[in-house]
Amino acid sequence: MAYIIEFEPIGIRLICDDPLTISEAARQAGVSIRSVCGGKASCGKCLVRVMEGHLDPPAEAEQKHLTLAQISAGWRLACRTIIAANTCVYIPANSLTESQVIQIEGLETTAVPDPAVRLLALLVDPPSLSDQTGDLERVANALCQAHALEGVWGGLPALRALRSVLREADWQIEVALRGTEIIAAYPLGQHRPVGMAVDVGTTKLACYLVDLESGRTLAAKGVMNPQIAFGEDVMSRLETVLVEPENADRLQAEVVSSINEVAEELCAAQRLAPDHILDYCLVGNTAMHHLLAKLPARPLAVSPFVPALSDVLYIEADRLGLNAAPGARAYLPAPLAGFVGSDHLAFLLAAGFDEGDRIRLGIDIGTNTEIALQVGSRIISCSTASGPAFEGAHIHHGMRAAPGAIERVKIAEDGEIQCDVIGGVPAIGICGSGILDALAEMYRARIINERGRFQLNAPGVERANDDSLIFYLSKGVNGYRDVMLSQHDVDQVMLAKGAIRAGIEILLNQAGVAPADIEEIVIAGAFGTYLDPCNAVRIGLIPGVPVERIRAVGNAAGAGARLLLSSLEYRRRAQSLAKRIEYVELTIVPGFNKFFAKGVRFPTAA
Amino acid sequence: MAYIIEFEPIGIRLICDDPLTISEAARQAGVSIRSVCGGKASCGKCLVRVMEGHLDPPAEAEQKHLTLAQISAGWRLACRTIIAANTCVYIPANSLTESQVIQIEGLETTAVPDPAVRLLALLVDPPSLSDQTGDLERVANALCQAHALEGVWGGLPALRALRSVLREADWQIEVALRGTEIIAAYPLGQHRPVGMAVDVGTTKLACYLVDLESGRTLAAKGVMNPQIAFGEDVMSRLETVLVEPENADRLQAEVVSSINEVAEELCAAQRLAPDHILDYCLVGNTAMHHLLAKLPARPLAVSPFVPALSDVLYIEADRLGLNAAPGARAYLPAPLAGFVGSDHLAFLLAAGFDEGDRIRLGIDIGTNTEIALQVGSRIISCSTASGPAFEGAHIHHGMRAAPGAIERVKIAEDGEIQCDVIGGVPAIGICGSGILDALAEMYRARIINERGRFQLNAPGVERANDDSLIFYLSKGVNGYRDVMLSQHDVDQVMLAKGAIRAGIEILLNQAGVAPADIEEIVIAGAFGTYLDPCNAVRIGLIPGVPVERIRAVGNAAGAGARLLLSSLEYRRRAQSLAKRIEYVELTIVPGFNKFFAKGVRFPTAA
Repeated sequence: MAYIIEFEPIGIRLICDDPLTISEAARQAGVSIRSVCGGKASCGKCLVRVMEGHLDPPAEAEQKHLTLAQISAGWRLACRTIIAANTCVYIPANSLTESQVIQIEGLETTAVPDPAVRLLALLVDPPSLSDQTGDLERVANALCQAHALEGVWGGLPALRALRSVLREADWQIEVALRGTEIIAAYPLGQHRPVGMAVDVGTTKLACYLVDLESGRTLAAKGVMNPQIAFGEDVMSRLETVLVEPENADRLQAEVVSSINEVAEELCAAQRLAPDHILDYCLVGNTAMHHLLAKLPARPLAVSPFVPALSDVLYIEADRLGLNAAPGARAYLPAPLAGFVGSDHLAFLLAAGFDEGDRIRLGIDIGTNTEIALQVGSRIISCSTASGPAFEGAHIHHGMRAAPGAIERVKIAEDGEIQCDVIGGVPAIGICGSGILDALAEMYRARIINERGRFQLNAPGVERANDDSLIFYLSKGVNGYRDVMLSQHDVDQVMLAKGAIRAGIEILLNQAGVAPADIEEIVIAGAFGTYLDPCNAVRIGLIPGVPVERIRAVGNAAGAGARLLLSSLEYRRRAQSLAKRIEYVELTIVPGFNKFFAKGVRFPTAA
Repeated sequence: MAYIIEFEPIGIRLICDDPLTISEAARQAGVSIRSVCGGKASCGKCLVRVMEGHLDPPAEAEQKHLTLAQISAGWRLACRTIIAANTCVYIPANSLTESQVIQIEGLETTAVPDPAVRLLALLVDPPSLSDQTGDLERVANALCQAHALEGVWGGLPALRALRSVLREADWQIEVALRGTEIIAAYPLGQHRPVGMAVDVGTTKLACYLVDLESGRTLAAKGVMNPQIAFGEDVMSRLETVLVEPENADRLQAEVVSSINEVAEELCAAQRLAPDHILDYCLVGNTAMHHLLAKLPARPLAVSPFVPALSDVLYIEADRLGLNAAPGARAYLPAPLAGFVGSDHLAFLLAAGFDEGDRIRLGIDIGTNTEIALQVGSRIISCSTASGPAFEGAHIHHGMRAAPGAIERVKIAEDGEIQCDVIGGVPAIGICGSGILDALAEMYRARIINERGRFQLNAPGVERANDDSLIFYLSKGVNGYRDVMLSQHDVDQVMLAKGAIRAGIEILLNQAGVAPADIEEIVIAGAFGTYLDPCNAVRIGLIPGVPVERIRAVGNAAGAGARLLLSSLEYRRRAQSLAKRIEYVELTIVPGFNKFFAKGVRFPTAA
């Protein structure tokens, strides 16, 4: 059963299907709650108040941060409180990350609203035998008088709607205008102008309903990308289309139908219908982009991996099958290259890579990891096939960050293993941040060496039935299963981190920048939000910079999509940013293998 | 069985289903052959030579115009020669009407080709790992280098095609460009750029395949409008939609499917496929326009009869269901008013009403008759519901101009009736020009009075079984039926001509122009081509001007559509013309009934 979490005073509604922590819910809704301790309930910075809805007593770890009065008033730590039904949560400004405070206040109070589509009220004089002016010209004249607009026109779907609405609404209407083009008409006073922003991930679709006038997110929901049934990663999905070209239609229909379903749900929560959606912005990697637009994807799968275009597509929403206002369009920002998509562009835009002249590294860790290096006005980027290990896939007990997942691991001096499990329930698996912690701790405790090989005599290392070496993180009790890491698991993670680190080093090398010069490392994505920056440095995933220079920005691609949805200025900035980004094809960089071999190893100084 | 008539040296192919005279075939193909005698085989000006195909011996009437050598070489009179199978006809310049000679020579030799869509050859450098530029940017760069074009882009359907064609054609392509927009791509050297012009008549669809580079018509075909099954005239067709709104989809699908069929046939005759069609221009009355564009038609059927727009629609062809190049559009010129369509605009454009400062009357006679009066730079127009009598409908023995139709009538001093029958076969009915002749002659012979009432004692007037009066034009022999006109038939024609004449007089009255000041009367449509101008004046259908001031221009709407298809300059002229035309709603003109009552009578001076 779907339920709604409403965040106050921001006003965002998140529609959820599964139980999740308030922190995770906020992240999915595009709200960053502070998390100094990384969700260990030790810093107490993520204080929120549950205003309405069922509430369990606080967990033990929470209690030391709360007075009895607070507890009875509904105050809890967002990182420890699991929600499974309709709930209203108040987030005080103190509990928001600084950038979030700036962003929300900025968008709500100071940013100039600048959407592509506006909604204008209009009273139209009805026609008569002595004034047989056509509907379009009549509306254009009224717009000219009331709003000083010239050259108004309309496409066919909008004209059809206009003709009916004018008469149904007795010539009192609201006109949706994109520039001077009428794209829809509604009876007067029916609704506010909204649009949909979607981050089309390989695994997940993050959908946001946005008020175009204020830029505010009204409602949000994340669902799995149904294309997963055709292959988990980008390559296997492209192969599906290569083998069976008709699958392109199916993949497209699946993802659009999911987006339509979510859009309808989000609209319903605002008492709107999908045909009130006036604009769409969809970002995603280049394969998702091409599959969504039904652009032949084959050339993306074979060398030299060329996209159909590296420019914006702003196309009629109905051509993609998206439900929206009659003349609504879908804005698909420029894919940067075959393996660097518009989601990366949106991330860089949201993180401000087109501004300032600092030395900054932007990393979006996923099955493909995109990396960008800003050095003053220069931006170079690359993509590296890091595999899904950090998403918990292809790891024996890997799982996504959900209740039961080990998310923190610490190995004490005496060899005792402390695991934090999401939801405080018995462990059933391990998620990305837990895997990263485990490797860092196992290396520190010399359970694995600098090449990630298990040390046979190290404490906790056991021999499995098939003679391979394994390391137990948690022994199951009361029927719960053991959670362990195998040599194969560790190898997968080493390869993933090696690929990412090689990409980073090659970009630094091409720009002539030393790791110590990096002023900021911005990490996007869910994994980035939860990883322990110290451990990320310790295993060599990222260069050794002081930890305060590392910043997690959550679903920055989704944030970028929302900016692009509601601001023409951001669209202009994105287009100029896209043109400035230099793409580096890693496979043809001389010495790539050396960079990779070095990246796979742990830093020896650690 | 469809067959093809090829006209040389013009190069137009007409695809026909039924037997017809070479004159009529030429007219349908948009070629005006001279016809001083109005098709009576008496002037001998329509000399043509049948180069290939079956040929009967010349009819008696023809023989006096031909030498034996000519006859054996295939020379015939176009007005008397019936074609029923594949034929190649040579039309010497002498046999073309003057305006046709000018038009064809002009278009072929001096007019600057100015189509909306061009086809450019392009050799593109293939991509590599060190040059992963997207397909669109790659083609844009090549276009920039080879043809100095900037800002090239492409819509989604065209980008999909481009991506495939580039690789299938090994990077040697032809790009179809509308402005800077790529709308299609083909392997290099496949075909010439073509477009389709269609006059969407209530009764007939006249379709032309046009070479966009030269403006030449390559092939033509006329078919019945399949919407006839839903009602013969505009109003009954609109009612169908009012009663059953889903019929709008059916009507649209029917007409588009017919156009697609003809387009495929015309393309096939040029070894092209429908996806080679780069542009469409469709003209028609406002109801046909709205039904084609699926714009809600109800407001056209009820007062105050307001169109959805009075502006150009230049919409993606696939949105109408038309088969064409991926990004091709359909140009629908501006409807002028609820009852004055873009076909009238096209007629006025083809007849040059936007030029010069003469006093000219333009009349397009049909079920609705549109009339325009040019007085210097001023153009006023109106529409009048004249009914289908001049098309032979609602007349007891009425039929369209086909073999067996009486097309000329003469009543001699002694009361003997001479009828010319199309095809020289026994009469089976009477077409519009025959009806007009019959009325004029019957009035002259005092068989009917100035109000069109049969004179009981006049020669040939008989009493029918139901006691009504009838007049036999031809008595059937050898089993052929009689052909007669009843009082009801005559009344229908009187009402039709009354409506038309009232419209003319009201325009003259509003402009303060006397009939004698009219410098030219231009009559469009098939009926206009065949009517006897003297008789048209005699019955008072048109004002009494010297007969040399009356000019028939055939399917001028189709000619206008072809000009609009192949010339941006003509599109600009049409738009400025459309804005200048003042529409007069006849029903609210004071004294309309008086004008009508006077128009119904025969001129007493005749």
